Amino acid sequence: MDLTHFDENGNARMVDVTAKTETERMAAAAGKIKVSPDVLMAVKERRVAKGDVLTVATTAGIAGTKKTWELIPMCHIVPLTGCTIEWNFKEESCEIECRCTARCTGKTGVEMEALTGVSVALLTVYDMCKAIDKTMEIGEIRLLEKNGGKSGHFVRKD
Amino acid sequence: MDLTHFDENGNARMVDVTAKTETERMAAAAGKIKVSPDVLMAVKERRVAKGDVLTVATTAGIAGTKKTWELIPMCHIVPLTGCTIEWNFKEESCEIECRCTARCTGKTGVEMEALTGVSVALLTVYDMCKAIDKTMEIGEIRLLEKNGGKSGHFVRKD
Amino acid sequence: MDLTHFDENGNARMVDVTAKTETERMAAAAGKIKVSPDVLMAVKERRVAKGDVLTVATTAGIAGTKKTWELIPMCHIVPLTGCTIEWNFKEESCEIECRCTARCTGKTGVEMEALTGVSVALLTVYDMCKAIDKTMEIGEIRLLEKNGGKSGHFVRKD
Amino acid sequence: MDLTHFDENGNARMVDVTAKTETERMAAAAGKIKVSPDVLMAVKERRVAKGDVLTVATTAGIAGTKKTWELIPMCHIVPLTGCTIEWNFKEESCEIECRCTARCTGKTGVEMEALTGVSVALLTVYDMCKAIDKTMEIGEIRLLEKNGGKSGHFVRKD
Amino acid sequence: MDLTHFDENGNARMVDVTAKTETERMAAAAGKIKVSPDVLMAVKERRVAKGDVLTVATTAGIAGTKKTWELIPMCHIVPLTGCTIEWNFKEESCEIECRCTARCTGKTGVEMEALTGVSVALLTVYDMCKAIDKTMEIGEIRLLEKNGGKSGHFVRKD
Amino acid sequence: MDLTHFDENGNARMVDVTAKTETERMAAAAGKIKVSPDVLMAVKERRVAKGDVLTVATTAGIAGTKKTWELIPMCHIVPLTGCTIEWNFKEESCEIECRCTARCTGKTGVEMEALTGVSVALLTVYDMCKAIDKTMEIGEIRLLEKNGGKSGHFVRKD
Repeated sequence: MDLTHFDENGNARMVDVTAKTETERMAAAAGKIKVSPDVLMAVKERRVAKGDVLTVATTAGIAGTKKTWELIPMCHIVPLTGCTIEWNFKEESCEIECRCTARCTGKTGVEMEALTGVSVALLTVYDMCKAIDKTMEIGEIRLLEKNGGKSGHFVRKD
Repeated sequence: MDLTHFDENGNARMVDVTAKTETERMAAAAGKIKVSPDVLMAVKERRVAKGDVLTVATTAGIAGTKKTWELIPMCHIVPLTGCTIEWNFKEESCEIECRCTARCTGKTGVEMEALTGVSVALLTVYDMCKAIDKTMEIGEIRLLEKNGGKSGHFVRKD
Repeated sequence: MDLTHFDENGNARMVDVTAKTETERMAAAAGKIKVSPDVLMAVKERRVAKGDVLTVATTAGIAGTKKTWELIPMCHIVPLTGCTIEWNFKEESCEIECRCTARCTGKTGVEMEALTGVSVALLTVYDMCKAIDKTMEIGEIRLLEKNGGKSGHFVRKD
Repeated sequence: MDLTHFDENGNARMVDVTAKTETERMAAAAGKIKVSPDVLMAVKERRVAKGDVLTVATTAGIAGTKKTWELIPMCHIVPLTGCTIEWNFKEESCEIECRCTARCTGKTGVEMEALTGVSVALLTVYDMCKAIDKTMEIGEIRLLEKNGGKSGHFVRKD
Repeated sequence: MDLTHFDENGNARMVDVTAKTETERMAAAAGKIKVSPDVLMAVKERRVAKGDVLTVATTAGIAGTKKTWELIPMCHIVPLTGCTIEWNFKEESCEIECRCTARCTGKTGVEMEALTGVSVALLTVYDMCKAIDKTMEIGEIRLLEKNGGKSGHFVRKD
Repeated sequence: MDLTHFDENGNARMVDVTAKTETERMAAAAGKIKVSPDVLMAVKERRVAKGDVLTVATTAGIAGTKKTWELIPMCHIVPLTGCTIEWNFKEESCEIECRCTARCTGKTGVEMEALTGVSVALLTVYDMCKAIDKTMEIGEIRLLEKNGGKSGHFVRKD
């Protein structure tokens, strides 16, 4: 089993997708941040007041999906045709879940864009809450679903 | 307990650190990616051959720390004075651990730089191995240690 | 009347244009900078000599149109197929007018690109002349014309 | 009267500030966007609900100040030590005013950062409201105040 | 003979390619860096060990091709569909040759992307070896081949 | 003789300069582009008319120096305090020479900034003239002088 991002001489490369067909593609990824009860309360209160932590983090996450190709060296520039970020509070476990869905019409998938969007959004939550809690932990960043390429429809089971 | 990134009217802001003293600062963060045995083997083989996955990911992670202020809206531009990324294979649990240490002489801490470096490096590993395994999961991204600011020396316990 | 950049739960989003047709699109925007007679004279003299203020500003403005998606969080990455910037001196009112025309073949309009090009070009004029005059004022930044989308041909009246 | 951004041979240049002293500097700029009553109402409603237009625009504006040196060719990279953006509704004239204050400890002023922050924030309001109204106009972008350099304290009169 | 990047009034512009047809395009460029024997040996040794200079430089070069439109003001944003960088040691003359091939499906050629990739990759080699040798020299950066546009197939003779 | 950009385990790293003293630093680099007589004439004519090729290239080169840390993975972010680009026509050999001088007050040298400025400026000349001549060649990119660090004053001999 071989890594497609290297040629036979071991040179890293951007995979050639010139000959591939443009199709409508979608990818959704998720992740979460584990926070202290103080942070959870502060973010939730902000959610219903002016100066919303999650609006800043959503803005950063969407902007981040557009910078995926700048961050991940072998990623193609993919002009996304749509991007959403959604949030979910899990109060019992003190976690804030983030889900990012990216879409394009192109020759290559957008799972890296969705994963980057989740990562940047969660890092932004961390940044805005770190004065309260330095022990927050970001985790479970994973691909949920992917559609539109020749590898078919992927849906994560669990 | 209040969020410092908002003023009294709820406007998001970059916190004013003008009056703070420049000190030598350090932050270390870590995270990991859970992969399939095939991926672990492919990455480990690359480690000793030409075309090293982890050299590409290290390069991306270090470049990523320098883009932290572009990704996280309220972060200050911090000219880092040093940055390292280290890797550790955990073969039993099929995990690749990443640790990023960032340094600066400045008025504000560099924990976001260290956390961003870890995130980008792990996303790059994901990108280069995703043709083999789509179920990899990135997690346990957390601050390990922080030093040099007025809040003193933080070391994560666990 | 509702804002398309938010979903029903109030989450900001990049509008999904995946299903839209690619068409040839054009947008033109304009604005101006009000300057002192000294600045007007210095810029006009530069126009006919080496070291042209307006060539630097044109270069910055065209480069700026390509960064629109980086600056405006919900804008799509639009690979422009053409961009021009033109200048006009209004000597009686001591104003320098700037007009930017952007073109693409794509699924979404390029009015933000044209408006951003005008803004960046005028800010560059400000920067290069601010040693002479700090009271310059940038204004009347507006869309002049827009074509190619399903909303038809817009031409500003005034 | 001469333009400092060109040498004696007409070559554009970044002005040499190496020998200048680092001082605490501040600049404040303002501007406004003229909108339709529908837009004013939609933005005001968003201000008190989830999904705030002005939080997105504030986020974009603060991020924009950090990109000033990328947009304006002869600007120095200035690591800002603080940045705020404030908004004011003028209901009678259907205008939304924006004020950006930037701070640094450095060798050169931050007026371009404040002016760029205002411009990007107002362009973001335009982008998010343009589905309702294409005739919005951005104007009166000007320096309000500047402090900390050898040219002394500038305060705009009007 | 006229320069297409200026209009009849002397304004710099991004050339309008809206009406051109999308075709598969390729460009290859090359260049080299002349180094000291110590550097040549150090780089060659790294090639077969961990921490490969040329993997870092390849990563930087591929990332650099994606930034061509940011660096070269009149270049269009071209979403590349593929990019490779290859290296060749010329031991007698103490030179390391670099070749970059860029591909896209688009309306304009990618020779600037290939030339930028070579330049950034060689500058990265310089950076990583400059502690050993400050007299290295980068040269012979040139287009080798270009295909896919209406100007036909160009192959450099020499 | 060892490469400072790798640690003892072969991990690439940004060299730690935290403990170094801030000093005034300067670096000058040069390079040239070999062009056809047609291009030389077109550029020279532009030099004295509106729409100057070399003003666009100077603008791009200065902007490029500020992006050095984005392009070269292990480079530190260095806020330059000054940057100039100068040009020289060598008519007999049909060459256009470019010289870039970069300055900072910092802990690390700016030779990569000067070399990157030359490279980007020359690539921009290539871009603007390539419709006339595809065989232009960029070469002799080298450090001329470097001052201000603990390694003393370097001046290239030849």
